[in-house]
Amino acid sequence: VAPVGGEHFLQTPGPSNVPGRVLRAISRPTIDHRGPEFAGLTKRILDRLPAVFGTSSPVVLYPASGTGAWQAALVNTLSPGDRVLAFETGHFARLWSGLAERLGLVVDLVPGDWRHGVEARDVEERLRADRNRQIAAVLIVHNETSTSVCSDIEAVRAAMDAADHPALLLVDAVSSLASMAVEHDRWRVDVTVSSSQKGLMLPPGLGLTAVSEKAVAAAKRSTSSRGYWDWEPVLSANAAGMFPYTPPTNLLFGLDEALDMLEEEGLPAVFARHQRHAAATRAAVEAWGLELVCVDPSAYSASVTAVMLPGSSDGDRVCAISRDRFNMSLGIGLGRLAGPVFRVGHLGHFGDLALIGTLGGVELALRAAGVEVSGDGVRAALDMLA
Amino acid sequence: VAPVGGEHFLQTPGPSNVPGRVLRAISRPTIDHRGPEFAGLTKRILDRLPAVFGTSSPVVLYPASGTGAWQAALVNTLSPGDRVLAFETGHFARLWSGLAERLGLVVDLVPGDWRHGVEARDVEERLRADRNRQIAAVLIVHNETSTSVCSDIEAVRAAMDAADHPALLLVDAVSSLASMAVEHDRWRVDVTVSSSQKGLMLPPGLGLTAVSEKAVAAAKRSTSSRGYWDWEPVLSANAAGMFPYTPPTNLLFGLDEALDMLEEEGLPAVFARHQRHAAATRAAVEAWGLELVCVDPSAYSASVTAVMLPGSSDGDRVCAISRDRFNMSLGIGLGRLAGPVFRVGHLGHFGDLALIGTLGGVELALRAAGVEVSGDGVRAALDMLA
Amino acid sequence: VAPVGGEHFLQTPGPSNVPGRVLRAISRPTIDHRGPEFAGLTKRILDRLPAVFGTSSPVVLYPASGTGAWQAALVNTLSPGDRVLAFETGHFARLWSGLAERLGLVVDLVPGDWRHGVEARDVEERLRADRNRQIAAVLIVHNETSTSVCSDIEAVRAAMDAADHPALLLVDAVSSLASMAVEHDRWRVDVTVSSSQKGLMLPPGLGLTAVSEKAVAAAKRSTSSRGYWDWEPVLSANAAGMFPYTPPTNLLFGLDEALDMLEEEGLPAVFARHQRHAAATRAAVEAWGLELVCVDPSAYSASVTAVMLPGSSDGDRVCAISRDRFNMSLGIGLGRLAGPVFRVGHLGHFGDLALIGTLGGVELALRAAGVEVSGDGVRAALDMLA
Amino acid sequence: VAPVGGEHFLQTPGPSNVPGRVLRAISRPTIDHRGPEFAGLTKRILDRLPAVFGTSSPVVLYPASGTGAWQAALVNTLSPGDRVLAFETGHFARLWSGLAERLGLVVDLVPGDWRHGVEARDVEERLRADRNRQIAAVLIVHNETSTSVCSDIEAVRAAMDAADHPALLLVDAVSSLASMAVEHDRWRVDVTVSSSQKGLMLPPGLGLTAVSEKAVAAAKRSTSSRGYWDWEPVLSANAAGMFPYTPPTNLLFGLDEALDMLEEEGLPAVFARHQRHAAATRAAVEAWGLELVCVDPSAYSASVTAVMLPGSSDGDRVCAISRDRFNMSLGIGLGRLAGPVFRVGHLGHFGDLALIGTLGGVELALRAAGVEVSGDGVRAALDMLA
Repeated sequence: VAPVGGEHFLQTPGPSNVPGRVLRAISRPTIDHRGPEFAGLTKRILDRLPAVFGTSSPVVLYPASGTGAWQAALVNTLSPGDRVLAFETGHFARLWSGLAERLGLVVDLVPGDWRHGVEARDVEERLRADRNRQIAAVLIVHNETSTSVCSDIEAVRAAMDAADHPALLLVDAVSSLASMAVEHDRWRVDVTVSSSQKGLMLPPGLGLTAVSEKAVAAAKRSTSSRGYWDWEPVLSANAAGMFPYTPPTNLLFGLDEALDMLEEEGLPAVFARHQRHAAATRAAVEAWGLELVCVDPSAYSASVTAVMLPGSSDGDRVCAISRDRFNMSLGIGLGRLAGPVFRVGHLGHFGDLALIGTLGGVELALRAAGVEVSGDGVRAALDMLA
Repeated sequence: VAPVGGEHFLQTPGPSNVPGRVLRAISRPTIDHRGPEFAGLTKRILDRLPAVFGTSSPVVLYPASGTGAWQAALVNTLSPGDRVLAFETGHFARLWSGLAERLGLVVDLVPGDWRHGVEARDVEERLRADRNRQIAAVLIVHNETSTSVCSDIEAVRAAMDAADHPALLLVDAVSSLASMAVEHDRWRVDVTVSSSQKGLMLPPGLGLTAVSEKAVAAAKRSTSSRGYWDWEPVLSANAAGMFPYTPPTNLLFGLDEALDMLEEEGLPAVFARHQRHAAATRAAVEAWGLELVCVDPSAYSASVTAVMLPGSSDGDRVCAISRDRFNMSLGIGLGRLAGPVFRVGHLGHFGDLALIGTLGGVELALRAAGVEVSGDGVRAALDMLA
Repeated sequence: VAPVGGEHFLQTPGPSNVPGRVLRAISRPTIDHRGPEFAGLTKRILDRLPAVFGTSSPVVLYPASGTGAWQAALVNTLSPGDRVLAFETGHFARLWSGLAERLGLVVDLVPGDWRHGVEARDVEERLRADRNRQIAAVLIVHNETSTSVCSDIEAVRAAMDAADHPALLLVDAVSSLASMAVEHDRWRVDVTVSSSQKGLMLPPGLGLTAVSEKAVAAAKRSTSSRGYWDWEPVLSANAAGMFPYTPPTNLLFGLDEALDMLEEEGLPAVFARHQRHAAATRAAVEAWGLELVCVDPSAYSASVTAVMLPGSSDGDRVCAISRDRFNMSLGIGLGRLAGPVFRVGHLGHFGDLALIGTLGGVELALRAAGVEVSGDGVRAALDMLA
Repeated sequence: VAPVGGEHFLQTPGPSNVPGRVLRAISRPTIDHRGPEFAGLTKRILDRLPAVFGTSSPVVLYPASGTGAWQAALVNTLSPGDRVLAFETGHFARLWSGLAERLGLVVDLVPGDWRHGVEARDVEERLRADRNRQIAAVLIVHNETSTSVCSDIEAVRAAMDAADHPALLLVDAVSSLASMAVEHDRWRVDVTVSSSQKGLMLPPGLGLTAVSEKAVAAAKRSTSSRGYWDWEPVLSANAAGMFPYTPPTNLLFGLDEALDMLEEEGLPAVFARHQRHAAATRAAVEAWGLELVCVDPSAYSASVTAVMLPGSSDGDRVCAISRDRFNMSLGIGLGRLAGPVFRVGHLGHFGDLALIGTLGGVELALRAAGVEVSGDGVRAALDMLA
């Protein structure tokens, strides 16, 4: 593939474009994680990170991918044989429930069409039906990166309350955190799972779990084998600015810088920016005459937009053309959506002009792939941004 | 000014966006400029740089801005009291001839309207009229960064030949080098002047002069005081991979990397990319119903486009809005064009998607500034790129 | 603490000093881990990394600390209730066996004095005594970072053969890999565990396990719950240049660069350099009249030297003075050795002059802490280096 | 040359080791030098830089090497045919006076033995003898980088006063600035010349001149052709946070960071550190039984130490061995001192441990080159540092 000029547009829905500031922070020399400078770094991060989760509870950091953080949420709070209720909202919901099964949990996976979010009334019904209170936890993916469908966690929580069910609420906020409001405390989530390479604007390598008091209490009863994932030693070491394992120091440099950036812009402005970019992207998709994967306007994602292609069009081909000719990575369709779908990430370190360039690139790639577009998507987006 | 997300778009017509690769190269630790590693670096650069100037003659590098390289061209080849013929094609042509005057040269500055390039027949007439061969040099700005008008150096050379005049030909290729074909040898230019922060994709700080044999011979006769600018000690030190002054080592790291990038893409592809982007930009301007500063299609620049605003519109305001709301720097109007003009740089490290974002940003800034645009410039550009 | 000039000397026995080249590589923009550029990166790494382990078997990489890689070794090959034989050679041997217990294994921890390596004849006796072949695995820390005692894995393997015992051999090579010869294949190790922040010259964040065919076969029988740690999906995804979880892309950029550096110097030269630096460090310790923690010359570590202080001297104080006044981090004593011990790391990206500076700094810190030193350690080291 | 491990020790007396912080600052994306962010940067620098020169007068910055700043000092204040009094204290004093000659000045170069500083009484005598006040300026190199001899500028100024001579005082502080006290105002220097790659801890590429009111007044009378070097347009543009030429933006990022570092440590502490390191280095040289080039203890440099080798020893060979085997660049002998001399830079970003490593490396290189050393230089330095 010949070079085509300019920096790459990394418009996968994670990893997102890492700011130069963060990359430079990450390139600082590694320091001793037993010294006072490191303790100061830890404190700055742990004091500020909970606000991004909408919580005053602690956030536990792991050198790990998001998959590791999924596992941490499960093995700390649940025991082999426990039942969990999960909803098949898309590829990542499937992966998470599959992991739960491999970890010895019994999963009730409620099927879904990958185009809707979790229905709160389904949650309520399922929980009401569980008269013996066998269900130990409800697993929900907040923002399904594979479908760009966002489930309403507040409604889920209300449904759990309505059913008066004591199950824990475990939420995957991997592709929503720091792009959309995540309200761990207000929604009474027990574990919110996330990772570094999306709204937090970092390279991959950090898994995060925000942990409620109820989750910590559940952890005391759980019999799962945890080792690396055990919250307890992390929480006690963190109190002294340390970690019970070697921490990923350079990513923490980056996280500290990313938290600065989020504070400078302000979380409300960050969320509004993502909403605006998502709306402009959907306007483009509509103008092109293409279909969104998400069919429920109240469930549109602010960080990613998954698009259906007509007829026998091949999303992978669109993505390959985008990458090779236009220097932009898009997200391919995943799982059941592999083939007719591609996904546009518009999250993290991203501005209006980069969005316009991205949508222009999508149009160019669609045209080059022979996908007919009926109208002017870039114009629609521009008018919305103006 | 509140942060607005994403990396800055540096669309001034220089400095241009510096590639991350080059920035990382520049951040390598400074090395001893008397050692063999440095000598190897010098050799790699000096072996490869002349091709960018279209020459097999040497290129002399200075730690300096382009203004310094202008001065180097003048003081090496000319003596106080020498006459030079210059053409007022724009702001930078004026500045260069002003510098020549301050350096003791007698300048015939042929007035211009800042919307045309140099007329070859004017050159021929002026030189023919100079029966005593008093004119020692002709000064031409190849690509006027202030007007986006490109003068035809090949035609100028032909005119000089037709007049059978022995004057030296000194050319400013600051904003054309590495973006447009510069043919130092084929056009028989005597000194081609450039600097680092445009097509070479570097930060500012390096001035460059490509030097013909005739120029070197002229330097032997010149009585100007030169000191720092003297080619002779540079040329002899360079032969040993050294410099007679402390060289700007870290910019040379960057230049080595930038030359790698130019080789990877290939100069013909680089030039074609610039032409394509310039054509798309002009298509946008035309669709918006705005006027180009350059009124001669054969003289359109490939690296920058200067745009006239209608009525009392204020280019500086457009640029301020672009910067503050859309995170993009544009070029303001300079000199005589300050006020009704703004300029879009589309040079150096730049791709199709960044161009689309840039043009989208220009439209948004125009609209926000209350400048009426009559049509869809972004669409016109997109269709041209497709 | 007032700044004292110059870059920090990070002489903990890991994290080690990360080369500027690696830091710059890590600061490259994150790329899509589903694209061909990433697949090429993965292939370059996976093709070259096994040689560092002395193996032609695959190496499995995790976004994790070394603790995670310990866990991966255990949960892939063993099942809850399995017996493992471990040797208390120091702090990290204790931690690993403690982790094994928490993961449900039954650990026979052979006590040790933290000043000797594993005795091969103890291994043989213990295994011979295990007539029912209940012991499923032998756990050995190759190079005990807390004591600078190196156990002879080749002799352990010979002892296992002599006992004709089928147990797996699991080896922690965290602080020996890429500093000392690790011969996974020749020693018939089943899992060699390591991490990024020592001889591999990277920041923390990558855990590694080299995996024998016998280990892979054992993994098929193991009933431990693994999830994230499961080798099988990694090995199949790796075949296509991919990972089953989001890989730590930027650390992989760094690993690729670090492998370049190891190849440029050559592993034999790297190992010889470490041996030379360790010998010079021990010469300094001896000249100072201090005692090594390691009392068996055949077990001296090449990457770290742990030093006993006389009387009531406080190693933590020496380390604090070193850090605050001389800008150097040393390793404090860990576990049972906390207090009278400090440790000097001389591993990874390190040269003769940095070693001399390090030893000079140790002497200055000792003197400032009031520790009497009887002779000229720096001289002894210099003479050895000369 | 095979890699030998660890980062390079750049112990030339400039360029000095550039701090990682500065290198990362330099790698920030270039910004528009006509925008408000750049104006803020300029202001921060111009507000803080004069203190480093001990002045409240302005400092003029050039994209240039120190040679360029030499030229700026001369062409702004003097006119062709003016007499200047210079003192041959070493290689750089020769080069500067040579430059003055090439620029048309008439130079009285008082010969010297390259081992002493300027004698104030010579200055006084020469000026008294100049009854017609023909001498327009006195040129002094404060710290001769080639000899490590520091001239007493305060005494020179007193001598000029004693002679009641109106000549300007032009001082080269290239290798003293930010390492040793430079008192532009207190010493009533008219132009203090420096550059970026020494005590300012930057890569080469910035030339600096601090300019007294008397110098500015002289500039109004001078008839030299200046162009690029003219202070006047710089001073007026600087008032608005701008430059009359394209400024070297990325070096300015670095300068801003370097000024932060100087402020954090504090100039008095910076100077004391340099004095301490120089004393320790001289203690080492003395212990080795080698001779200093500087024979006047009151003139010892704090930033560099030049050392004489006995008999037919070859300094270049010592430097080559140091570079190739021990990964350290030293300064070779220059001009008249080429051959028997080598120089150790101990300036800028430098600490005690790096100094010990440096001196250890010097000893190793001397021994490898067959230079006999009679005693333990590293020990002497260590004892002085302790």
